[in-house]
Amino acid sequence: MTTQPLVGVIMGSQSDWDTMHHATDMLEQLEVPFEVRIVSAHRTPDLLFEYAGSARERGLRVIIAGAGGAAHLPGMAAAKTTLPVLGVPVQSRTLNGLDSLLSIVQMPAGVPVGTLAIGRAGAVNAALLAAAILAPEYPGIDAALVAYRQRQTETVLAHPDPREVAS
Amino acid sequence: MTTQPLVGVIMGSQSDWDTMHHATDMLEQLEVPFEVRIVSAHRTPDLLFEYAGSARERGLRVIIAGAGGAAHLPGMAAAKTTLPVLGVPVQSRTLNGLDSLLSIVQMPAGVPVGTLAIGRAGAVNAALLAAAILAPEYPGIDAALVAYRQRQTETVLAHPDPREVAS
Amino acid sequence: MTTQPLVGVIMGSQSDWDTMHHATDMLEQLEVPFEVRIVSAHRTPDLLFEYAGSARERGLRVIIAGAGGAAHLPGMAAAKTTLPVLGVPVQSRTLNGLDSLLSIVQMPAGVPVGTLAIGRAGAVNAALLAAAILAPEYPGIDAALVAYRQRQTETVLAHPDPREVAS
Amino acid sequence: MTTQPLVGVIMGSQSDWDTMHHATDMLEQLEVPFEVRIVSAHRTPDLLFEYAGSARERGLRVIIAGAGGAAHLPGMAAAKTTLPVLGVPVQSRTLNGLDSLLSIVQMPAGVPVGTLAIGRAGAVNAALLAAAILAPEYPGIDAALVAYRQRQTETVLAHPDPREVAS
Amino acid sequence: MTTQPLVGVIMGSQSDWDTMHHATDMLEQLEVPFEVRIVSAHRTPDLLFEYAGSARERGLRVIIAGAGGAAHLPGMAAAKTTLPVLGVPVQSRTLNGLDSLLSIVQMPAGVPVGTLAIGRAGAVNAALLAAAILAPEYPGIDAALVAYRQRQTETVLAHPDPREVAS
Amino acid sequence: MTTQPLVGVIMGSQSDWDTMHHATDMLEQLEVPFEVRIVSAHRTPDLLFEYAGSARERGLRVIIAGAGGAAHLPGMAAAKTTLPVLGVPVQSRTLNGLDSLLSIVQMPAGVPVGTLAIGRAGAVNAALLAAAILAPEYPGIDAALVAYRQRQTETVLAHPDPREVAS
Amino acid sequence: MTTQPLVGVIMGSQSDWDTMHHATDMLEQLEVPFEVRIVSAHRTPDLLFEYAGSARERGLRVIIAGAGGAAHLPGMAAAKTTLPVLGVPVQSRTLNGLDSLLSIVQMPAGVPVGTLAIGRAGAVNAALLAAAILAPEYPGIDAALVAYRQRQTETVLAHPDPREVAS
Amino acid sequence: MTTQPLVGVIMGSQSDWDTMHHATDMLEQLEVPFEVRIVSAHRTPDLLFEYAGSARERGLRVIIAGAGGAAHLPGMAAAKTTLPVLGVPVQSRTLNGLDSLLSIVQMPAGVPVGTLAIGRAGAVNAALLAAAILAPEYPGIDAALVAYRQRQTETVLAHPDPREVAS
Repeated sequence: MTTQPLVGVIMGSQSDWDTMHHATDMLEQLEVPFEVRIVSAHRTPDLLFEYAGSARERGLRVIIAGAGGAAHLPGMAAAKTTLPVLGVPVQSRTLNGLDSLLSIVQMPAGVPVGTLAIGRAGAVNAALLAAAILAPEYPGIDAALVAYRQRQTETVLAHPDPREVAS
Repeated sequence: MTTQPLVGVIMGSQSDWDTMHHATDMLEQLEVPFEVRIVSAHRTPDLLFEYAGSARERGLRVIIAGAGGAAHLPGMAAAKTTLPVLGVPVQSRTLNGLDSLLSIVQMPAGVPVGTLAIGRAGAVNAALLAAAILAPEYPGIDAALVAYRQRQTETVLAHPDPREVAS
Repeated sequence: MTTQPLVGVIMGSQSDWDTMHHATDMLEQLEVPFEVRIVSAHRTPDLLFEYAGSARERGLRVIIAGAGGAAHLPGMAAAKTTLPVLGVPVQSRTLNGLDSLLSIVQMPAGVPVGTLAIGRAGAVNAALLAAAILAPEYPGIDAALVAYRQRQTETVLAHPDPREVAS
Repeated sequence: MTTQPLVGVIMGSQSDWDTMHHATDMLEQLEVPFEVRIVSAHRTPDLLFEYAGSARERGLRVIIAGAGGAAHLPGMAAAKTTLPVLGVPVQSRTLNGLDSLLSIVQMPAGVPVGTLAIGRAGAVNAALLAAAILAPEYPGIDAALVAYRQRQTETVLAHPDPREVAS
Repeated sequence: MTTQPLVGVIMGSQSDWDTMHHATDMLEQLEVPFEVRIVSAHRTPDLLFEYAGSARERGLRVIIAGAGGAAHLPGMAAAKTTLPVLGVPVQSRTLNGLDSLLSIVQMPAGVPVGTLAIGRAGAVNAALLAAAILAPEYPGIDAALVAYRQRQTETVLAHPDPREVAS
Repeated sequence: MTTQPLVGVIMGSQSDWDTMHHATDMLEQLEVPFEVRIVSAHRTPDLLFEYAGSARERGLRVIIAGAGGAAHLPGMAAAKTTLPVLGVPVQSRTLNGLDSLLSIVQMPAGVPVGTLAIGRAGAVNAALLAAAILAPEYPGIDAALVAYRQRQTETVLAHPDPREVAS
Repeated sequence: MTTQPLVGVIMGSQSDWDTMHHATDMLEQLEVPFEVRIVSAHRTPDLLFEYAGSARERGLRVIIAGAGGAAHLPGMAAAKTTLPVLGVPVQSRTLNGLDSLLSIVQMPAGVPVGTLAIGRAGAVNAALLAAAILAPEYPGIDAALVAYRQRQTETVLAHPDPREVAS
Repeated sequence: MTTQPLVGVIMGSQSDWDTMHHATDMLEQLEVPFEVRIVSAHRTPDLLFEYAGSARERGLRVIIAGAGGAAHLPGMAAAKTTLPVLGVPVQSRTLNGLDSLLSIVQMPAGVPVGTLAIGRAGAVNAALLAAAILAPEYPGIDAALVAYRQRQTETVLAHPDPREVAS
């Protein structure tokens, strides 16, 4: 991807990649230029501040942040930028991601994080929401997004009977 | 507000206004033109489909939807538009908004809702996130957003000692 | 099944079939004519409205709707018809179906969804409840339902000692 | 109400009446003949068995049962009849009705309870669902139900602006 | 076991035996005479009433009842007898036994169920508690219980270092 | 009460008395001799050990222990005696007693606590269960318990119509 | 307090003072020198980093951080220092502090936060734990802590009968 | 390890070792001398009291206690010593450690337990927090701790791209 990234996809650790690659897969499919990086709120706090603090001037337009457990990455990124920050709660081992979800979504008034579903669905949807945010200015993304949504509808309509592919 | 609305603020019932006016208050403060309407997913489903289905062509750029309990308004609005939809879980009487939150945030892959915190904080933050989405194209909104965030920081810095105003 | 369907069984996606076939299996056993279709609230909202909006005039008497996560299918079907709608919360991967349950059962006053248990038990019971609703007008269904309940009781009575088939 | 009751409304204790009168209010509004009685699963188990066991032959068509905490009334009524049983989880003092909800909705395969929302909304909706079950055979109930739903929609449409009656 | 049973162990279905045999194993170890039977609150309600209603005159002294999901067996047994009833919440598939636990423990004032832990630990402990109840009148049971508790303590003391048998 | 106490009622702090006096009220009503004492697991651990460790030889037959939050009193009492220990989860301020309940009921295999409902209902029922445990040896208690249960049933039967005393 | 502070008490907003003054009250009682400051993770992230990053060289020995909702303050302070950080989950309006608790306690391996109970009890105990950490080096604190614990025990022992001050 | 132990690591049963060895592994890595022992609150209460009651005079400086379910070990250890006690909630089979967490963290005011995350992360972090507590007096531990934290940061920085080691 040679274009200037518009979306920065960050995650707290390597293990989050299993979830977060669904976000980058979808960004690719929607032709949204992005960058991806492991940034840990707790193990590399200075990197997080530098990353989020400089994101806007570096040309990023949206930050997608995935983290699990006491998931502080999205909220702390949001604290350091006025860019839209989208949070993906990664499913945690012990509490199934309920801790991740509450740690991300329950931000106090003043610093928003747009939170998506726990796990893979949330990662996919973070990419779709980022595309929706960028669509008005980027007709190519808009077209890809509209086409994706249309195909999705057509796929369901094309397979109305669940018994056809029953396991 | 005479300008063409950029944000549509909808809510499931009159009783949600206690929460959702915090969103419109903040939109006003940030000089974001908006419209506000009661649209019930369950009692006026056709209106919801018409509203969300025509939002884009009517010039809206973001939809903020607040609802409580089995809160289907944000997700069903998102099903009918490619615009970014932001969901505000209104605190429910029995389960404190946990039902509202899960009903809004746990969207399946394919149709995103950017979910904010339960209650007032979520309403305020939906407005801030809408402003952040619009900021790149609307310098006035960007300036208002940046100024708001700065004032917010300064207010905290100006009152470092909690004992000064202790109750 | 050549008879006019009395029950419409819908589900949000192919993956729900693992759960929902327990409903159609039981409907067959009780000789209740039914139709089955994948209808996604979020990916095919227009189909959902058309399906639920025309169900009554098409002769359906009960709708059984299964969905998981932010499960809007049962409630939105109920918003478009006065027919009894029965909701089956499909077990979700991350939150074990608690999100599905709350999204379905916590409907606001005015639009009811009769909600069954999470997963297979709920699917079976949705079929039994549909049969109970139809029984007064359809003696064959009534007889099948009464016989099923009786056999069920007899089966338990016939095997009083759990040690006989202990694993 | 002089007509033969079609719906039996039972509740575990006098204190549940605060919730359950919303069911009987709605039944009256929809012109559904009903009877109402306190029947405690735990304090009057024999009465419960006699009540549910004879409900069908006494001409009842639907049982609405409300209870809180370890709420066994709906499920045990369902164990003693093939009539449709609708359960209303009454909000409990300590766990806000989550215990009531799970005690009612999580019935095992074989004995269904159509469960409504916790509290007032569930009581109202139990009446609406009972009416929907009876509507095909009772044109008067059908007409009242359809009219109720229409008025409900019109009421929302007539008051689109939440600011008009803002508190 | 030829002696007159003092404890009746009942469970809602064959599948609960995986859990409940831990109760009967412990009763055997403590030399408490018992009987065991599948009694389903929902599928065999009359049997349940007969069983619990005649337990006292048949010479039983304690009832141990295990059930999962909307677990009504212990509470309904308690409604039909003044004997001590001990409830074992069987781990449910979807909600891990939280539904079983709340359905059993949250009994209203007037009809008690002494509730043990979810799953195997609860089954073992129900047997121990039954033995403790019987101990004052049955010196053999008392001696077995005291010996069991002492051995249990000695076993821990004999293996102080977890590294010895580390996996 | 001049008779030798058979039940020891202990609680973690003075504030638990609001809940636990319902246990002693019921014990009085059932003519069960008891003693009552504040014993804090965390603030007076030695007293707890002395109390529970000597309870049996002092002639107590049952211990009722109420506590809230991280409620260790019932379980630690059970660790120091083979007497039946009944636990009452006192409703906590922040988590409504869910913490109290789980802290008491989830005992490991080997040391049982018979747990009752959260709050007042649990306190009442602990007394009833203690009476049920003592009834076989104490005909007076047995008679009082049977009479209480009968009166309770009759009271419900005497007031079948909730509308008579509607608020 | 003129001595060099050993404990830094920080909180996310003025409204947390209602909870956190219980920490400073206890520190005063134990003669632990402290400083107190409002530091918001989200509104003043740079101040937080400066505060936590310089805490050690400024002579602080323990940081006590209180916050509610998506409570990132304790974890992010811990990310910037090797000092012991103690976290106090402030009770949140909507979810009673369960969100605060999970956001604080579920830290990933590598960066610890010693978490206390939700609300007032947690604030008091954070002070006690800080004192326990400092006690070996500060005999005065050790003496105060030991005396406090002893008085606490004696107070319970002095009032054994809850009926004396019954409300 | 020949040095006098500074940290006592205790756990409720052999099965907790799978979790707790992560604490001792980290203590070894940080060169903190420790001892390890199985001490069961419920099966060996006297040993627990003796262990915790003598810990201070035996030279221990911190106690790390891991337990699951109704986890009373950390809180009861804290009741018997003024040493800092750190609690590790071991993941339970049925409730995923939510019971363990609440049983440990929700201590009443007066007796603190510094609680870490559920499972492995909590065990690792208990060791890190113990090291942080000891660091001011033990330069070797301080150096090891600082080095560990630095390496941890460097490891993340050295692998910025999650795609490099994608599974």
